[in-house]
Amino acid sequence: MELQSIIKQNHLGLLFQQGLFGVEKESQRAYGDGSVATTAHPKAFGSRAYHPYIQTDFAESQLELITLPNKKLEDCLRWLSAIHEVVLRTLPEDEYIFPMSMPAGLPPADQIQVAQLENPEDVAYREHLVKSYGKNKQMVSGIHYNFQFDPELVKALFNAQNEIKSAVEFQNNLYLKIAKNFLRYQWVLLYLLSASPMVDDDYFKNGVPQDLSPMVRSLRSSKYGYVNDPDVIVSFDSLNAYVESLEHWVNSGKLIAEKEFYSNVRLKGSKKARDFLQTGIQYLEFRLFDLNPFEPYGISLNDAKFIHYFILLMAWLDETATQEDVELGQQRLGEVALEDPFSVTAYSEEGELLLFALLDMLKDIGAEQTAVKIVQEKIMQFSQPNNTLCARLVNEIVKAGGYQQLGAKLAKQYKAQAFERFYALSAFDNMELSTQALLFDVIQKGIKTEILDENDQFLCLQHGDHIEYVKNGNMTSHDSYISPLIMENKVVTKKVLAKAGFNVPQSLEFTSLEQAVASYPLFEHRAVVIKPKSTNYGLGITIFQQGVQNPDDFAKALEIAFREDQEIMVEDYLKGTEYRFFVLGDETLAVLLRVPANVVGDGERTIAELVAHKNNHPLRGDGSRTPLKRLSLGEIEQLQLKEQGMDIFNTPAKDQIVQLRANSNISTGGDSIDMTDDMHPSYKALAVGIAKAMGAAVCGVDLIIPDLTKPAEPTLQSWGVIEANFNPMMMMHIFPYQGKSRRLTLDVIKMLFPELKI
Amino acid sequence: MELQSIIKQNHLGLLFQQGLFGVEKESQRAYGDGSVATTAHPKAFGSRAYHPYIQTDFAESQLELITLPNKKLEDCLRWLSAIHEVVLRTLPEDEYIFPMSMPAGLPPADQIQVAQLENPEDVAYREHLVKSYGKNKQMVSGIHYNFQFDPELVKALFNAQNEIKSAVEFQNNLYLKIAKNFLRYQWVLLYLLSASPMVDDDYFKNGVPQDLSPMVRSLRSSKYGYVNDPDVIVSFDSLNAYVESLEHWVNSGKLIAEKEFYSNVRLKGSKKARDFLQTGIQYLEFRLFDLNPFEPYGISLNDAKFIHYFILLMAWLDETATQEDVELGQQRLGEVALEDPFSVTAYSEEGELLLFALLDMLKDIGAEQTAVKIVQEKIMQFSQPNNTLCARLVNEIVKAGGYQQLGAKLAKQYKAQAFERFYALSAFDNMELSTQALLFDVIQKGIKTEILDENDQFLCLQHGDHIEYVKNGNMTSHDSYISPLIMENKVVTKKVLAKAGFNVPQSLEFTSLEQAVASYPLFEHRAVVIKPKSTNYGLGITIFQQGVQNPDDFAKALEIAFREDQEIMVEDYLKGTEYRFFVLGDETLAVLLRVPANVVGDGERTIAELVAHKNNHPLRGDGSRTPLKRLSLGEIEQLQLKEQGMDIFNTPAKDQIVQLRANSNISTGGDSIDMTDDMHPSYKALAVGIAKAMGAAVCGVDLIIPDLTKPAEPTLQSWGVIEANFNPMMMMHIFPYQGKSRRLTLDVIKMLFPELKI
Repeated sequence: MELQSIIKQNHLGLLFQQGLFGVEKESQRAYGDGSVATTAHPKAFGSRAYHPYIQTDFAESQLELITLPNKKLEDCLRWLSAIHEVVLRTLPEDEYIFPMSMPAGLPPADQIQVAQLENPEDVAYREHLVKSYGKNKQMVSGIHYNFQFDPELVKALFNAQNEIKSAVEFQNNLYLKIAKNFLRYQWVLLYLLSASPMVDDDYFKNGVPQDLSPMVRSLRSSKYGYVNDPDVIVSFDSLNAYVESLEHWVNSGKLIAEKEFYSNVRLKGSKKARDFLQTGIQYLEFRLFDLNPFEPYGISLNDAKFIHYFILLMAWLDETATQEDVELGQQRLGEVALEDPFSVTAYSEEGELLLFALLDMLKDIGAEQTAVKIVQEKIMQFSQPNNTLCARLVNEIVKAGGYQQLGAKLAKQYKAQAFERFYALSAFDNMELSTQALLFDVIQKGIKTEILDENDQFLCLQHGDHIEYVKNGNMTSHDSYISPLIMENKVVTKKVLAKAGFNVPQSLEFTSLEQAVASYPLFEHRAVVIKPKSTNYGLGITIFQQGVQNPDDFAKALEIAFREDQEIMVEDYLKGTEYRFFVLGDETLAVLLRVPANVVGDGERTIAELVAHKNNHPLRGDGSRTPLKRLSLGEIEQLQLKEQGMDIFNTPAKDQIVQLRANSNISTGGDSIDMTDDMHPSYKALAVGIAKAMGAAVCGVDLIIPDLTKPAEPTLQSWGVIEANFNPMMMMHIFPYQGKSRRLTLDVIKMLFPELKI
Repeated sequence: MELQSIIKQNHLGLLFQQGLFGVEKESQRAYGDGSVATTAHPKAFGSRAYHPYIQTDFAESQLELITLPNKKLEDCLRWLSAIHEVVLRTLPEDEYIFPMSMPAGLPPADQIQVAQLENPEDVAYREHLVKSYGKNKQMVSGIHYNFQFDPELVKALFNAQNEIKSAVEFQNNLYLKIAKNFLRYQWVLLYLLSASPMVDDDYFKNGVPQDLSPMVRSLRSSKYGYVNDPDVIVSFDSLNAYVESLEHWVNSGKLIAEKEFYSNVRLKGSKKARDFLQTGIQYLEFRLFDLNPFEPYGISLNDAKFIHYFILLMAWLDETATQEDVELGQQRLGEVALEDPFSVTAYSEEGELLLFALLDMLKDIGAEQTAVKIVQEKIMQFSQPNNTLCARLVNEIVKAGGYQQLGAKLAKQYKAQAFERFYALSAFDNMELSTQALLFDVIQKGIKTEILDENDQFLCLQHGDHIEYVKNGNMTSHDSYISPLIMENKVVTKKVLAKAGFNVPQSLEFTSLEQAVASYPLFEHRAVVIKPKSTNYGLGITIFQQGVQNPDDFAKALEIAFREDQEIMVEDYLKGTEYRFFVLGDETLAVLLRVPANVVGDGERTIAELVAHKNNHPLRGDGSRTPLKRLSLGEIEQLQLKEQGMDIFNTPAKDQIVQLRANSNISTGGDSIDMTDDMHPSYKALAVGIAKAMGAAVCGVDLIIPDLTKPAEPTLQSWGVIEANFNPMMMMHIFPYQGKSRRLTLDVIKMLFPELKI
């Protein structure tokens, strides 16, 4: 099989670089001093019986964070980032994620609990491992890297050759070639990426080995790491040989199960190795990698890319490693693992040559320039061992005054970072905050989620066979299609609500300015709102709070409204305060008061200073990447001040409220205040009825209420509904400026997946 | 109560003109010769137990067509027009609607059947009427005109006075004043609007009365019409007196029920007159009006407006008629009814004075200028009796050779008119054809319908308490909101369908032109479609049917797609024919083939002539008001011809198909061909599954199928789904160019109202 020439001749270079990527990252929950936590896995993470993202590996303290397969490595690491942020924000205040592979501050063995999984077999397996390897070794953590070629590539390669007749056999040969070559050359990755130079003395059951240097390249991948008995040799000569030797060790009792064979490459795609002969190897799992303590999530994107290209090189190479080569590779791995991190490796020439071959490959397959740069940088490290990750780590350990100290310091730093913008998921910051909040919750609770379209905020959630699609965090299959169509149209909304018996302000609609102007006598002295029929952002709206007083003002307001729409409404103006009711199903889950942009005087600072101070609030920012918008002091605000006889240099008295805007939109600096617990329940019930009348499962209902403490009466004086929104901004309620946060995204999940009993 | 000054002082002139209007129009089903039909009420009209639009009055042949209350008189007549079009298009081929009040060609009494209603009491009441009045009189038809003031007006008037303390009493007085004044002056309307100058001799049970002139103004309103025994005098002196005298006649057995009192004004709003004392008169019914044979629907908009202003005048007048005045009015009505239609009426001065007062009122209330013109025209008719409707009718009867002959001629003319654009409802022609078709069906089957928003195609359908909202004829509560959101997004659609296991062409999406261009090697030699992610009108699409052959063409196509959207797709091109499947619930109801604009040669005519001929097809027009679009011979078509080595002056051979367009859109002149019965059922089942996977109740699924006769297989070679539409054009299937019409709107109604068992 001449893979290189097939790829070149068939222009398969790009397809060769595509595939599916997944990462599993183990790490210890730790206390502030870096010692392993002895607490139970947090209940907030839902059930480990199905959790796709947050599991425990060997020990109860050993988090295993998992990304689902992704087509892009970038996305894979984005998920890893998001999962970390969710975990860090959910852990108890005094717990952290330890950033290094070798555990520190190990508790006595009797306090190390194996993971308390629901399936008794899973627990029994772990108890067996304790007997074979001891608890300490099991606490070692690392990163597993899963890779699958694009099936189209495998098909194209198969079709382009004649040697092998069976597609399954072809695919098996391809993946087996990679596995063998990887085992032959894995020491190169270890040299470049290892990061487990040392461990506390109490890690060793029988005392620190005599011949062990104080600093090595990778304790984890050395014979002192969590590795099989050296007697257990599995043949990679052929898939048949592999299957038979693996079965031999299991049958002989040397391994309790196939999964106890801890090769740095695992063949994946079926439960039993023998099945690969029929159904084919589907993907490979590479288990070599130490946690990179300098990366908040244990691995950098550049290293992940480097590993990807390294794997491709293992397929690309002309030769395929023999069993002898594989064993040579294992031997070199063991040697390099125990080298001094600051020394030039014994095999640097082989390493450099291999990476030069990698550079040639990158050229042939048309890889991006960044890939070339990454490889060039790695090549340099063969002559400059001080620049390897492990050498740099050793320097930092010394600086920090010890292994555990450095781990604790970094762990705290990463946790603080994860709280910096606690309302967002850094990796999905291009999406809306409501969708980010929903993503947070599905990750936390363990619902498999696929982002179908990022720009469109379109998610697919899945639990078992139950699939739900969600757009914008709240548009779901639970809403009837007619309901947003009703709400989109103010005239129709009013007719529907009036028909259902709700208090709706009376209105007349006009399609011609002339007609509308002529209707003046109908509205003289009446308090009315003039507004375009379908716009949504407060544009074109004029309010005659004191009644329409003369035809000219009336005509002008009509004209302004007609600029925004071909149809306008003249509607009764309701006196009272506007509240936003968030309704989900049979319940009003949140009530919000929106207050126009303002500052409150302290008798000392000027308005400009008060604004600057208020803008320091952690929720304030540009208003799209943050829940609240910074106050500005533009033309509109200055005009508003002028009308109150002030300017920005005035110093308002203590507790004096200075209004900077007439409108209460959050998007112009308004404050959001949760009023859920203050609102009389009768209005909450009304909001539910209004949502139901429009067939909405999720709905934002705007009510005008003069007195929220008095029960609702059936008159417009008591309350009136002015609008309903099918895409209510959940974010306002989740992150209010004042008052209690209402985690509405979790309620959406409960609605969609009642079976989870969250 | 000084109504005039209250209205003037409070600027209530406009509000005074508002109200609710409804019309009930009786008329006989007739055969082609004008004689009364003896057939049963057509079953297609559903059940008379609830039908709000199409009922029968006295006789089985006597249609009663009813409009629901409308705020605008214009809308009232639009509904009347629509109901007529529905009836005329539904009647048996040899039946018509007789356009005149007095029946012609009366069958022998034993062949006149009273209306066969479901409620036995209703039938019994009619049998009683037969005994009291004979069958012939019952066959007389007319128009009943219902009017209610805007309740806001009544409230405003009540609030502006101090005389009467009870709102109900005030309202009763207001309506009673109108009723009395109307009875006093109704002869004026009779003079101007009457149209029953004669009747066949056999109408009279006991022979033609000796003293009857051959031509009069209104036989129907004369003592020879369908009127109560002259002994039955009901007092309008006060509401109390009215209630008591009416109850007296019922108790005495002279009337079988209150409803047998055939006053030209009926007080309305409750079943029993006595209830008015508590709950108030809600509206008035005016029953004076003869059918206007010159109007296809029995009444003109101008006359309807005139009646409205006349009613307002009855409230506006300073004086209120006494019981004596009422009886004087009745007497004059009887006299004028029997006057010679060509004579000046005996009371012309009173009539003219009244209408001058009407003109004054119009000025005072700020009525539109057209109202003034209408009244001025009527005033002229007092000095020019030849211009009255009745006089003009007599002239036409003479011309046509007889009463029945004229009726038959007009009936045929109106039926033909109703078929001119049989796919539309003339009065609702501003709405989409699919919505018009749905309106046709709800009128035919008897579902109460309110148009909530015409521009937005938003309807509210109601049967009993069951309300359904419909937009665009097919968007309903049965669809989940997520399903149109999925369909709106091509990328998401593909992912959802692929996940559900349907054959979807593979694709890659790009957000940058550069990346997309660089992907060339992935697509070299592959047949692909390049298209923007979200546009819908075929814009920006390039098809490489024979595979992408060079990077330049590829880049150019990408650039074109990026002009339409920020995200584009490169998708496998599927070979085969595209069919549109219309799915509703569990069934594919229609399958359509769309063929690009073309003409078929006959060996004689040029392409230009063939196009002109094809454009004569009744379904072709501008494509928005017609189901099909006229072929054009613009640049694109001429270029298409040129590519085939032709121009518009070529004469294609017999049966030669000349393609004028590459795209098959109906909107560019394409032909729609129903293939429902030709399509293999396996594909229909697939389309249903595809709709279900997206949660859609109504869905247009586009499948590419190479051979519609072979059963579907699970490969892209057998079929592939390329798109799904949440707003499929039902109209294409209802009015195809070739093949069977599929009345999908009726299926939508069946889905929404299964209880109707249509």
